Amino acid sequence: MDNTFQENETVRMEAFSDGVFAIDITLLTFELKAPRHPDGDYSSVMLLHALFKQWPAYIAFGLSFATIFIIWVNHHRMYNVIRRSDSRFMYYNGLHLLLVSTIPFTTSLMSNYIATEAMTLAGFVYMFLFAGICATLYLMWSHATKDYLLLKRPAADVKVQTVRMGLVISIIAYVVAALASFLSPYLSLLIGFGMVVYLSRLKYHRERVV
Amino acid sequence: MDNTFQENETVRMEAFSDGVFAIDITLLTFELKAPRHPDGDYSSVMLLHALFKQWPAYIAFGLSFATIFIIWVNHHRMYNVIRRSDSRFMYYNGLHLLLVSTIPFTTSLMSNYIATEAMTLAGFVYMFLFAGICATLYLMWSHATKDYLLLKRPAADVKVQTVRMGLVISIIAYVVAALASFLSPYLSLLIGFGMVVYLSRLKYHRERVV
Amino acid sequence: MDNTFQENETVRMEAFSDGVFAIDITLLTFELKAPRHPDGDYSSVMLLHALFKQWPAYIAFGLSFATIFIIWVNHHRMYNVIRRSDSRFMYYNGLHLLLVSTIPFTTSLMSNYIATEAMTLAGFVYMFLFAGICATLYLMWSHATKDYLLLKRPAADVKVQTVRMGLVISIIAYVVAALASFLSPYLSLLIGFGMVVYLSRLKYHRERVV
Amino acid sequence: MDNTFQENETVRMEAFSDGVFAIDITLLTFELKAPRHPDGDYSSVMLLHALFKQWPAYIAFGLSFATIFIIWVNHHRMYNVIRRSDSRFMYYNGLHLLLVSTIPFTTSLMSNYIATEAMTLAGFVYMFLFAGICATLYLMWSHATKDYLLLKRPAADVKVQTVRMGLVISIIAYVVAALASFLSPYLSLLIGFGMVVYLSRLKYHRERVV
Repeated sequence: MDNTFQENETVRMEAFSDGVFAIDITLLTFELKAPRHPDGDYSSVMLLHALFKQWPAYIAFGLSFATIFIIWVNHHRMYNVIRRSDSRFMYYNGLHLLLVSTIPFTTSLMSNYIATEAMTLAGFVYMFLFAGICATLYLMWSHATKDYLLLKRPAADVKVQTVRMGLVISIIAYVVAALASFLSPYLSLLIGFGMVVYLSRLKYHRERVV
Repeated sequence: MDNTFQENETVRMEAFSDGVFAIDITLLTFELKAPRHPDGDYSSVMLLHALFKQWPAYIAFGLSFATIFIIWVNHHRMYNVIRRSDSRFMYYNGLHLLLVSTIPFTTSLMSNYIATEAMTLAGFVYMFLFAGICATLYLMWSHATKDYLLLKRPAADVKVQTVRMGLVISIIAYVVAALASFLSPYLSLLIGFGMVVYLSRLKYHRERVV
Repeated sequence: MDNTFQENETVRMEAFSDGVFAIDITLLTFELKAPRHPDGDYSSVMLLHALFKQWPAYIAFGLSFATIFIIWVNHHRMYNVIRRSDSRFMYYNGLHLLLVSTIPFTTSLMSNYIATEAMTLAGFVYMFLFAGICATLYLMWSHATKDYLLLKRPAADVKVQTVRMGLVISIIAYVVAALASFLSPYLSLLIGFGMVVYLSRLKYHRERVV
Repeated sequence: MDNTFQENETVRMEAFSDGVFAIDITLLTFELKAPRHPDGDYSSVMLLHALFKQWPAYIAFGLSFATIFIIWVNHHRMYNVIRRSDSRFMYYNGLHLLLVSTIPFTTSLMSNYIATEAMTLAGFVYMFLFAGICATLYLMWSHATKDYLLLKRPAADVKVQTVRMGLVISIIAYVVAALASFLSPYLSLLIGFGMVVYLSRLKYHRERVV
């Protein structure tokens, strides 16, 4: 059995992941750019108009920020019930981070193409990435909970099936959102915001009274 | 009652927030750009002139740096008197980080439009964001101190009303600064620098002698 | 003997290194850019075409991400068996970070030139940097294990020779990959992906059953 | 006496500073850019030529990386002998971080103007910033050691005068380097590299055998 990684390994891997999440969520800010202005006179009204024209960027920024935040919360809740790590779990986590760190790219796609015909594809890619990210969370969870392999004791408090179901539902919902962007990009975005609420409610272990 | 998040959750959320603050304050550096130069001869005098022409960027960089720093100090002082977190507090904190991470954007607006007519609007947006950030701090504080819900003991040392008042004053001051930019952008900036001093003096708990 | 740096110094240096690794791996995302589009109509098919044309960027992003991740794992495993640090170890570590933080640059070279004739040189530089990074890991390891100078006890569990050999093999493999890019860039990339697997299997100490 | 900040405050401020240092040192990588290439054929020889033409960027990157690293080491060594913080120390530290986070800007100046006539001024600004950074370290040290105010016990081990002298020498040396850039930019750079070695040798407390 390959148990190289101990508890303190789990701590470091989580800290490293936290770093990637924090940087990623902050890099989204590059989606928001001060509108270029020609030299010479430039009035507040013109700037206001230019700022309003950037609305797709604000929506993409807001949804991506909320989604990264809520995925971080879930990643974090998962680690909270995990006692140790092994190589496979580490690689699943690496894959998870790889996908998370491409969110600024798909966000940029969204905010660049949201007002064009190509938004259909941009929305599809954007939502499909979130499905993939939930799939890596599912892989991590499945592996960690198989025979209660990596769980903290008492494992009885861990909601193995609830989370498994919750992540499957999330994957399906994001695939639906991806496909929905062929019908209406705005429906797709709505599902995206709904998923932030849904994922915020996923509980990984029974609550104990403090 | 939804008390999923325990004390160690508070630690992680604070560490995550610290990461976002640290990255955000460092990303401001992108406001400072080496002036482009045409090929061929380019003398020190020409560079000096080009550097001086960038003065709005230096002011925006300085004020934003100082403000993020002092908001981090306040965020940090608040967490110092908080024992645990709940879902609502976590979302208020997420909203707080969302607003904080748009500071590089409004800073960029400021430094791009400070010398144009549109500075009025740029200054308004810039200061209004700070009002919003103080408002999220107020939300966090109100929720945490309601019935002493999330406070560390002994809660008697926590200056609940002082901080509440201080944050309300900050919100008002930043709204005034935002409106003042319609009169004079420079007055608005002055209020901004004054607020850095004011916020640095807000104490969250009674001092104990070490 | 110059033993200024104690155990808690090791902790901080590792935390600082972790920060640099986490930021570096996240900055790779700037390789992935939303394709520019002309104003006016822009269909999903055109966007799909533009996205496919960026395949070199995806390969470069993926390989660099995987390599930084696996080098971080190795850096981390090394620190796990090290008890304390001295000045020389600290400088070797600094040199290591210097090279690691140029990976986004060589990645950018790769993704810009992968489809041109100049890919030969881009591939050479890209792979040669990885050889250099493994060489700095080798320097760190050699110094730390000389007379078991900086190792944790019981040092008998530390696989001094295995790691030394593994790092020498890695250096050679990356030099071969660098030279291979003169024959075929794709062979070179294949070696690169193979090395991720190889480096993931390097064990720094004997496993103990938990 | 204003002693709001306790020991754990020192820990957080140091962690926050570490974050800013780590991000700053990694952002230097943006100085290194893949050379643009015209569409069509582009040979390895042409790329090699273009890469060599970027030598000023490599020198600026290397010197800035080494200097940030060694200033981080000094900042860190200082915090190692400090027991607690007060408001003034915190503001000096904030000012220190403000200056540190402008290094990517002056580095960009250097690498853009190193081969032009304007290098004189670029070199002056670049070196003068380092003098300012050492001056903020000096302010921090003076305040912390006044009446042994913020020092860890036993304060007798702390090399108060050695460090004070070392920082004064560093300020002077960087001012000399700044002025030297009017004579010869390369002499100035040489002093810069020398200072990295000098600052790496500054000891903040007497060594104890482990």
